[in-house]
Amino acid sequence: MSSAYARLTHTFLRLSRFGHLSAIAGWDMQTMMPAGGSRARGEALAELSVLRHEILTAPQVGEWLQQAQQEELDDVERADLHEMQRSWQQASLLPASLVEAKALAGSRCEHAWRQQRPANDWQGFAANLQEVVKLSREEAEIRAQANGCSRYDALLDLYEPGMTSAMLDRTFGDLKQWLPDLLQRVVDKQATEQVQRPDGPFPQAAQQQLGLAVMKLLGFDFNAGRLDISAHPFCGGVPEDVRITTRYNEAEFISAMMGVIHETGHARYEQNLPKQWAGRPVALARSTAIHESQSLFFEKQLGRNPAFLSLVQPLAVQLLGDQPALAADNFIALNQRVKPGLIRVDADEVSYPAHVILRYEIERALVAGEIEVEDIPALWQEKMQALLGLDTTGDFRNGCMQDIHWTDGAFGYFPTYTLGAMYAAQLFQALQRALPQVNEMIRQGELQPVFDWLQQNIWQHGSRFSTRQLIENATGEDLNPAHFRKHLEQRYL
Amino acid sequence: MSSAYARLTHTFLRLSRFGHLSAIAGWDMQTMMPAGGSRARGEALAELSVLRHEILTAPQVGEWLQQAQQEELDDVERADLHEMQRSWQQASLLPASLVEAKALAGSRCEHAWRQQRPANDWQGFAANLQEVVKLSREEAEIRAQANGCSRYDALLDLYEPGMTSAMLDRTFGDLKQWLPDLLQRVVDKQATEQVQRPDGPFPQAAQQQLGLAVMKLLGFDFNAGRLDISAHPFCGGVPEDVRITTRYNEAEFISAMMGVIHETGHARYEQNLPKQWAGRPVALARSTAIHESQSLFFEKQLGRNPAFLSLVQPLAVQLLGDQPALAADNFIALNQRVKPGLIRVDADEVSYPAHVILRYEIERALVAGEIEVEDIPALWQEKMQALLGLDTTGDFRNGCMQDIHWTDGAFGYFPTYTLGAMYAAQLFQALQRALPQVNEMIRQGELQPVFDWLQQNIWQHGSRFSTRQLIENATGEDLNPAHFRKHLEQRYL
Repeated sequence: MSSAYARLTHTFLRLSRFGHLSAIAGWDMQTMMPAGGSRARGEALAELSVLRHEILTAPQVGEWLQQAQQEELDDVERADLHEMQRSWQQASLLPASLVEAKALAGSRCEHAWRQQRPANDWQGFAANLQEVVKLSREEAEIRAQANGCSRYDALLDLYEPGMTSAMLDRTFGDLKQWLPDLLQRVVDKQATEQVQRPDGPFPQAAQQQLGLAVMKLLGFDFNAGRLDISAHPFCGGVPEDVRITTRYNEAEFISAMMGVIHETGHARYEQNLPKQWAGRPVALARSTAIHESQSLFFEKQLGRNPAFLSLVQPLAVQLLGDQPALAADNFIALNQRVKPGLIRVDADEVSYPAHVILRYEIERALVAGEIEVEDIPALWQEKMQALLGLDTTGDFRNGCMQDIHWTDGAFGYFPTYTLGAMYAAQLFQALQRALPQVNEMIRQGELQPVFDWLQQNIWQHGSRFSTRQLIENATGEDLNPAHFRKHLEQRYL
Repeated sequence: MSSAYARLTHTFLRLSRFGHLSAIAGWDMQTMMPAGGSRARGEALAELSVLRHEILTAPQVGEWLQQAQQEELDDVERADLHEMQRSWQQASLLPASLVEAKALAGSRCEHAWRQQRPANDWQGFAANLQEVVKLSREEAEIRAQANGCSRYDALLDLYEPGMTSAMLDRTFGDLKQWLPDLLQRVVDKQATEQVQRPDGPFPQAAQQQLGLAVMKLLGFDFNAGRLDISAHPFCGGVPEDVRITTRYNEAEFISAMMGVIHETGHARYEQNLPKQWAGRPVALARSTAIHESQSLFFEKQLGRNPAFLSLVQPLAVQLLGDQPALAADNFIALNQRVKPGLIRVDADEVSYPAHVILRYEIERALVAGEIEVEDIPALWQEKMQALLGLDTTGDFRNGCMQDIHWTDGAFGYFPTYTLGAMYAAQLFQALQRALPQVNEMIRQGELQPVFDWLQQNIWQHGSRFSTRQLIENATGEDLNPAHFRKHLEQRYL
């Protein structure tokens, strides 16, 4: 008779294998599948989701989880059991009718949004969004009662376990104190600088070569992953076979290159998760925010760091052809331009947090029932004005309708972007304390010590520790926005 | 309370959706996956196979099949039920221990063969093959008792339902009467012809463009499929999203082009299976031999037909550059060269059946227990001499070790190649009777009537009829090798 924990391990291994197929078929859908395959693929993936949900929520899984609590387990097994419990609880809490209604409302809202956004049709969008908000509040209420926390915190916990809105209020409150002023000073400073724009076109094949060269520099394991093209860049696949994507615009090469660097950060985390526990929940990435901290460590701490850019610049010249705008100093300046704008995904790292704070404040109030969907545009306008000094009146398309996240009720997700950026800055500064010459080493092309440090402090631990413990072990303290401020001031002032 | 047939339909729909994911992940494995993903992918696919087997052989499926026999069903539903019954019986007959032992022995034999073949190591290979043969005989015995037929016929039925060795003996016996003589006459005739070889290299990108252009000509639906590269060309995916592959050798372009034409034949059959029954067994392709008849109809009846080649020749000139060897007459002659050789996959359509007959005679005797593994080389030598006039003594690598099929016990598969070629010739001649001007139409680029005829007579029927009924409905008679003989004589003499 095997132990309850052994039975759970077997069940979660099956789930992980089915998750593998779901990840690959999902990647294929975004990169390879012709449009005509869409309906059959959607049905096949939905059938697999139903199966995975059934396996996870089968009655004996709940019993085994209880029994396993009494079994003798080592630290890793206990962390593994904790993650199993989390998955099971998250999947079991909601009645099937709510899961189905939410999926339906979300897919209806998202589908219509694809037409409504270009048409700037706020009224049409708001009607669908109301239903999504209503169901998300129901979900949040059920999760809140089970977790003994607020509605919004219950949703936040899905993306960053342990994070609370009290902590976010403190942290984002701190950012709001100094960020608008810092942004203004950076913009004023850059107004006096001459930066030359590179002349395109930059053929897709050459940009792809540059992306591959940068991935190589960043230690991507091509025996366990690949680079492809999709409408929206992402990192998919499985740790043994990580699929990253970018998109190319032949008029300029920086967004594709930075997209590749960002996704390579996600990829290296995945590729270096603990192999000895493969197939167990404890071997998975810690959280959305920690994942984002790795991609932003690569994109911002390394990717826009002059020491690293000095390694990329000769590759760009070699693969894209020489021109004055690709000269070393201009190449760095190009990658460090700061300019407040309406669109989050196009934002530089100084103005980005403002986009996130604004969304956080709105979605928290929305989930709590303090505001309704019709209040969003006025709040958006007010906060854009206060944080970025921009007017979005009547421009819903480039205002509160710009993101996909709310369309299917992913409330609680946005904060992870800025948490990730702050963790990344805090991690890089801990690395600098451990290796004071790190920028000099990077400039020499010695990147391995950087990867070794990340491997040692983040990657190898999977979900063994809580986010808080992981960050404290790595940096000696809990999340502290002072490091992010220091990073921005040092780089941009 | 829904009917037993309705429950079966639901079960088989689930199986079809899981089959979709298996097909796409399998395609990915051959075309996209980096080597490091292989183990995890293998485990994920095996987990899905186990699940599909469990769903198919669950006790209630057997009960529903019995109950559904008594229910009121229309003709299509009855054909559907028949296919369900077949799948269920095939999956349920063997004890799990035999399935596992056979999979293990097959994968061990195939794996070792990849090294043993280049090393010409017959002794090493024979030791593994003995185990595969032993287990295949056990499988055949169980299936034979259930079907009330001979061992070999029970295996043959897995690939071509309804086909028997008595029918094959008759058909192949007929071929053996006239094929060696016909082959000699063709070789003698061609000995006096001057054919110029094209000068390469032919860049992969240009060959790919040619492949895509020919697929377009052949009506491939690019909204429901794509062309990629793999070590061995195949047609995979699902009817809504058919994935075909080829491989490129820059020294010559004809094999890749003919590979694409062959796989496009498979693809158009898949893409035009009856959509109104999608997800039901009756909507699937009839059999391996009928599938092969469609790919060979495209590759041989169309692809090496002068009328069709006259459409391809200007595309080749346009995409590969002009040269004397691509002039119209030489282009046709190039695609019709006949030369007996040791290797089946490189064989022209006149000598190909000899390769199949030889393998059929050996594997039938092997499964029946009339010969043992150690008898194979001498028989191979004797039959190669008799049928193709070639000596293979001591050359196991290019003799009885050349194919992958026997390594994992796919006995009964080889005959479907030549059955397919004969069906293709018989179908084309029926088409010619219906449309006497068909070659002239093809030469003018009017291919739609050809596709319409195949759609009408083969594609739209899925598995509604038995192979025999399907061929009789389409051509007015059962399989008749006279049409194949007529085709070869008309084209090559």
